Amino acid sequence: MTRHAGRHFLQIPGPTNTPLAVLAAIAKPTIDHRGPEFGLLGRSVLAGIKTIFKTSQPVVIYPASGTGAWEAALVNTLSPGDKVLMVETGWFATLWKKMAARLKLDAEFIPGDWRSGVDAGKIAARLAEDRQHHIKAVAVVHNETSTGVTSDIAAVRSSMDSVKHPALLLVDTISSLASMDYRHDEWGVDVTVAGSQKGLMLPPGLSFNALSEKARRASRTAGLPRSFWDWEDMLAANETGYFPYTPATNMLQGLQVAIDLLHAEGLDSVFDRHKRAAEAVRRAVQHWGFEIQCRNPAEYSSSLTAVIMPQGHSADRLRAEILERCNISLGNGLGPLSGKVFRIGHLGDFNDPTITATLTGIEMGLRVVGVPHRPGGAEAAVAYLAGNGPPVAQAAE
Amino acid sequence: MTRHAGRHFLQIPGPTNTPLAVLAAIAKPTIDHRGPEFGLLGRSVLAGIKTIFKTSQPVVIYPASGTGAWEAALVNTLSPGDKVLMVETGWFATLWKKMAARLKLDAEFIPGDWRSGVDAGKIAARLAEDRQHHIKAVAVVHNETSTGVTSDIAAVRSSMDSVKHPALLLVDTISSLASMDYRHDEWGVDVTVAGSQKGLMLPPGLSFNALSEKARRASRTAGLPRSFWDWEDMLAANETGYFPYTPATNMLQGLQVAIDLLHAEGLDSVFDRHKRAAEAVRRAVQHWGFEIQCRNPAEYSSSLTAVIMPQGHSADRLRAEILERCNISLGNGLGPLSGKVFRIGHLGDFNDPTITATLTGIEMGLRVVGVPHRPGGAEAAVAYLAGNGPPVAQAAE
Amino acid sequence: MTRHAGRHFLQIPGPTNTPLAVLAAIAKPTIDHRGPEFGLLGRSVLAGIKTIFKTSQPVVIYPASGTGAWEAALVNTLSPGDKVLMVETGWFATLWKKMAARLKLDAEFIPGDWRSGVDAGKIAARLAEDRQHHIKAVAVVHNETSTGVTSDIAAVRSSMDSVKHPALLLVDTISSLASMDYRHDEWGVDVTVAGSQKGLMLPPGLSFNALSEKARRASRTAGLPRSFWDWEDMLAANETGYFPYTPATNMLQGLQVAIDLLHAEGLDSVFDRHKRAAEAVRRAVQHWGFEIQCRNPAEYSSSLTAVIMPQGHSADRLRAEILERCNISLGNGLGPLSGKVFRIGHLGDFNDPTITATLTGIEMGLRVVGVPHRPGGAEAAVAYLAGNGPPVAQAAE
Amino acid sequence: MTRHAGRHFLQIPGPTNTPLAVLAAIAKPTIDHRGPEFGLLGRSVLAGIKTIFKTSQPVVIYPASGTGAWEAALVNTLSPGDKVLMVETGWFATLWKKMAARLKLDAEFIPGDWRSGVDAGKIAARLAEDRQHHIKAVAVVHNETSTGVTSDIAAVRSSMDSVKHPALLLVDTISSLASMDYRHDEWGVDVTVAGSQKGLMLPPGLSFNALSEKARRASRTAGLPRSFWDWEDMLAANETGYFPYTPATNMLQGLQVAIDLLHAEGLDSVFDRHKRAAEAVRRAVQHWGFEIQCRNPAEYSSSLTAVIMPQGHSADRLRAEILERCNISLGNGLGPLSGKVFRIGHLGDFNDPTITATLTGIEMGLRVVGVPHRPGGAEAAVAYLAGNGPPVAQAAE
Repeated sequence: MTRHAGRHFLQIPGPTNTPLAVLAAIAKPTIDHRGPEFGLLGRSVLAGIKTIFKTSQPVVIYPASGTGAWEAALVNTLSPGDKVLMVETGWFATLWKKMAARLKLDAEFIPGDWRSGVDAGKIAARLAEDRQHHIKAVAVVHNETSTGVTSDIAAVRSSMDSVKHPALLLVDTISSLASMDYRHDEWGVDVTVAGSQKGLMLPPGLSFNALSEKARRASRTAGLPRSFWDWEDMLAANETGYFPYTPATNMLQGLQVAIDLLHAEGLDSVFDRHKRAAEAVRRAVQHWGFEIQCRNPAEYSSSLTAVIMPQGHSADRLRAEILERCNISLGNGLGPLSGKVFRIGHLGDFNDPTITATLTGIEMGLRVVGVPHRPGGAEAAVAYLAGNGPPVAQAAE
Repeated sequence: MTRHAGRHFLQIPGPTNTPLAVLAAIAKPTIDHRGPEFGLLGRSVLAGIKTIFKTSQPVVIYPASGTGAWEAALVNTLSPGDKVLMVETGWFATLWKKMAARLKLDAEFIPGDWRSGVDAGKIAARLAEDRQHHIKAVAVVHNETSTGVTSDIAAVRSSMDSVKHPALLLVDTISSLASMDYRHDEWGVDVTVAGSQKGLMLPPGLSFNALSEKARRASRTAGLPRSFWDWEDMLAANETGYFPYTPATNMLQGLQVAIDLLHAEGLDSVFDRHKRAAEAVRRAVQHWGFEIQCRNPAEYSSSLTAVIMPQGHSADRLRAEILERCNISLGNGLGPLSGKVFRIGHLGDFNDPTITATLTGIEMGLRVVGVPHRPGGAEAAVAYLAGNGPPVAQAAE
Repeated sequence: MTRHAGRHFLQIPGPTNTPLAVLAAIAKPTIDHRGPEFGLLGRSVLAGIKTIFKTSQPVVIYPASGTGAWEAALVNTLSPGDKVLMVETGWFATLWKKMAARLKLDAEFIPGDWRSGVDAGKIAARLAEDRQHHIKAVAVVHNETSTGVTSDIAAVRSSMDSVKHPALLLVDTISSLASMDYRHDEWGVDVTVAGSQKGLMLPPGLSFNALSEKARRASRTAGLPRSFWDWEDMLAANETGYFPYTPATNMLQGLQVAIDLLHAEGLDSVFDRHKRAAEAVRRAVQHWGFEIQCRNPAEYSSSLTAVIMPQGHSADRLRAEILERCNISLGNGLGPLSGKVFRIGHLGDFNDPTITATLTGIEMGLRVVGVPHRPGGAEAAVAYLAGNGPPVAQAAE
Repeated sequence: MTRHAGRHFLQIPGPTNTPLAVLAAIAKPTIDHRGPEFGLLGRSVLAGIKTIFKTSQPVVIYPASGTGAWEAALVNTLSPGDKVLMVETGWFATLWKKMAARLKLDAEFIPGDWRSGVDAGKIAARLAEDRQHHIKAVAVVHNETSTGVTSDIAAVRSSMDSVKHPALLLVDTISSLASMDYRHDEWGVDVTVAGSQKGLMLPPGLSFNALSEKARRASRTAGLPRSFWDWEDMLAANETGYFPYTPATNMLQGLQVAIDLLHAEGLDSVFDRHKRAAEAVRRAVQHWGFEIQCRNPAEYSSSLTAVIMPQGHSADRLRAEILERCNISLGNGLGPLSGKVFRIGHLGDFNDPTITATLTGIEMGLRVVGVPHRPGGAEAAVAYLAGNGPPVAQAAE
């Protein structure tokens, strides 16, 4: 390949741009996972990660990527044939449902249009019908990475409570955790699933299950066979900061730094930064005259925006041009959205010029490929960002 | 913690000392796992890893640590209740058996003394009894990391063939691959299990299943529920160099470099280097007057040596002293060997002085802690190594 | 300090953004500067650097920053009291003249307006007057970093030749080398001065003197005391790839990679990339309605653009806002230009979105600080860049 | 080159093994040397470096290697023709004298045998003769890197005071600073010269002049031409943490970490560690039956040991074998000692096993090359180190 000068802009909706301090921590030599130095590291990350999930309950850290944490949430709490209620928010909800079926669960889908979030009312209605409590779990995606649509998890919890249904609530926060406000305890979630490679600003390779007391109780009788994903061995070893089998030591070194960086910025500032970026991106997209995949503004994602291409134009052709010319990676359309949608990631470690660079890159691509659009989208983002900055610090003159 | 000057010597039997070039590759920014650059990387490592297993058949790469690859080998090939024949070579064989039981397999153990390798004759005898072919798999550990004892895999294969038993042969090479000669195809192994953090000189976080045609056929009817570990999705996506879910991109970047380094040295040179180091270590241990856990010299491991402490002396006290004083980590005794045995790792990225540094460090520990021994063990290793070097290159004067 | 999320954009006119591959090479452990591995490195960089200066004559590499290489050019070729003709192109020409005076040379300045390059005719005229050849050297700056104005070195050479004056020609290329075409041999330069931290994409810490035969002859009789900067010891040791005193080993490791990167891109492509970026930046500046410090378009710099602030607005206030808000560093006005000018660096390792990110950042700053301007400058750059891209590679769909 | 597995042991007397944390700091992206973040860095290192020299007076930091700091010490304090009294302790003292002569100073050498330190009595005697105070400076080397011989700087100061001679005292601490106790203020040194690549555990590329009030006064009238090395511009800019010309930013990032590491260990612990290592090395050397270049035990260096080869055996042949076989670099004999002496560096970032690894490596080399010696040198070092450890921390069992 010819050399591309300059840095790559990884503006897919995860994996995200990793801070150099995190990469440096990952590149430190591996330490003995049974030695005293590891104990310090283990205790630090096991305590620290709870603050990110906003939970005082245990968080299991797997040396595996996010898909594994989906599986863990299911095999620890359910038995073969158990009914699980899921909602078709998009590609990743669909994959999770396929996984449930492969694991011999009885997964039921509330159909969706891939442009909307979870309808809590429909969940309440379905649960209300389920007088016998055959439904053992409700599993939803907080932020559907294929569409840029969020769902109101607190509302889902309320709807479940309103019909007094005992099902567990399992939530995928893979592309929302540490980018948008999320409250495992307050929202009464039983298992929260997450991965390292998005808002946590790490490479892929770690994944998480945040637990509730109820989920742990369920795990005692859950009948799906499990070993690698089993929570109890993990939690027992975690008591002293260690793991039952070799953990992903270097990734944990990175996680420790990532958690520190998030707190150094302040979680609320992190969420605000994502919110501003998302609004700036949407203003550009709307200025260009393109439609946003997410139908309902109340459900806009802070971490990515899926953009619908004008009829007759290939999203993949555009993305290829932008990659080749600008060294910016954008997300592709998944499943039925393939070629029709491109996704702009605005999550993880970025600042205002990362976002405007991306938008100018897209605008160059639109011009070169010849996609009809109203010029000036990046400019609209600039105007928005300039008017909506963080309080400006005392400038050093 | 006070600062320890100087580099850490990670002389546990894995994770191992990672070459800086590998760490640097892992610390490169994460790339788009669906972009063209990733395709090049994926195809490169998927092809390269085959040369390490000595196979022309596919190797599955998981974004998970080695324990996961054990689980993958079982869930892809077996059905609930299937009988698996295993051999009690030590702690890791025992853990693998426990895992099989948890996964609802019927695991049968040929008992062992934790000081010997697999007795192929006993396997043949047991299989010969199994006229009905209830035993679906024989699962053995090539190099038992808890004891430093190897097993003759070719002999196991022959014994199975001799009784014409159709069971699959599953082999754990976690602490042998890329440190000792291993031949997946030639030895007729059906699933070889391995991890990144030993001979491959990477941090933990990747694991492997090398497959046979027969194993893949078995997977089509195997009834254990599986999704994350499923081979077929992997192999389908791997065709073009991609993965069905987010791979551990940065670790793959490191794997590419590690494979190149192994070939730059030459696999046979790598194995010789491990063999020489192991012999040097054993000469030191025997000089000190200590017993080696491995009873039979033909079964000595090239990658680690487990040493039995004299009665009344704690291996853990010795290890703590050596860590504190010399910044050298040694492996602890596992299970029933706890406190009674320490393990010297001599695998991965090391050279002669790494080994003699370790031995002098142990000797300092023995002196300080007051363990009776014959001084001069490191010296014995030096004498051996000096007489058995590689052919000396033309020295630049 | 609060954490700034996202990467820093170092858009001063040097030091420049350093490729991660170069930083990784610098972070490799230091090697023995008298060992065989160093010899390979030394010979590689000593040969490679010649291709960057376009010379077949020796290039001296100092373990020192660029200012040192100015001093080296003077002390190796001149004697106390020697007359040197210099041209007041801006701040750096002025500093070089001050240095000459401190070194007890008789430095004469052709006055300038800090908005124009060297007038070769004036040099010819002054040399023509100098019948006795008291002027021993003409020293000019190829790209004045304080103003963004280039000078035509070939024209200076011609003017010197036209009056048959034997003075040496010394040229500072600190902010032009490897960003704009430069030809040490073809243009008949006697000493070319350069540093590592600009077009060469390294941190500061190395500097260079490219020599001519005539310069080396002059050094034999030059009477200024010198030792550290002395060429002859250097050249003697360089014969075999070594240095007379400890070189900056790690920086040389980085230099080797940087030279490879420049050739991987192709020097002409590198120059074109800088030229396009400079034009894009100027279009934005002119769109905003600001004046460019460089008066004559034929003298525009490819590596930086100095922008004149509207009356009554502080360039430093603007820069501070942009730094705080966008994490973009811009260059300040130097000397008499302090507060009145800001400088946009577009050199080293960058791509199109680096440039447009910078322009959008400036535009945000202008809005926030309240500097009157015509919005849409970044947009103008986008339009230019989209219409003037490199030939687009076959896009992978 | 074939790949050498394992880490390199850089056991020359500098550059030294650099801690990975220091390399990581150097590999952080370059920052704006005129921005606010740099100011913090500059102030931190300018204050921190004083604690290492044990001075409350300013320390100048040059973006240049150590040889440059020698030149700086001379050109800032002396005028052409000034007499400087120097002592022939070895190769580096000789080079410094050559430099003085090139700079047109009148350098007078008190002859030496390259096996002894400075004889303070001889200095006193020579100064006493100098009634007219033609001698303007006494320049000595604290730790002669070519021989491993130290000199008593406090004694030199006393001898100068005893004869009430006003000459300046200039001291080279290039291979002693941060490895052996050194007290710029208490010992009344006027200019202390140092470099980054030895006890400071950095790569080469920074050098230092610690000053006295008297030295600064001398600089006001010193007549040697200077610009790059001039102290006053430096000190003026340093007031606010900045530099008069581009500093070696990334090296300063590393320096900040290195200073922190030294204090985290404690300077006295650092000196003790070097002392113990030196004694261990000498015990090995004496056990082998070789002579140490330093004649007088009171003058033994803590940072290196020069070893005399037995007649008829080439030190360079031995070093080449050890490098090829063990990947250990040792220092060569310099000048008249070439081929006759090899030097073992034991300075910078090392621990006990680094030292014993080096000694076992040498012993392997001696065996392979066939140099007659008494085996067991490394063992003697082990015995010494085991009996003379730091107080052992509470071991974690």
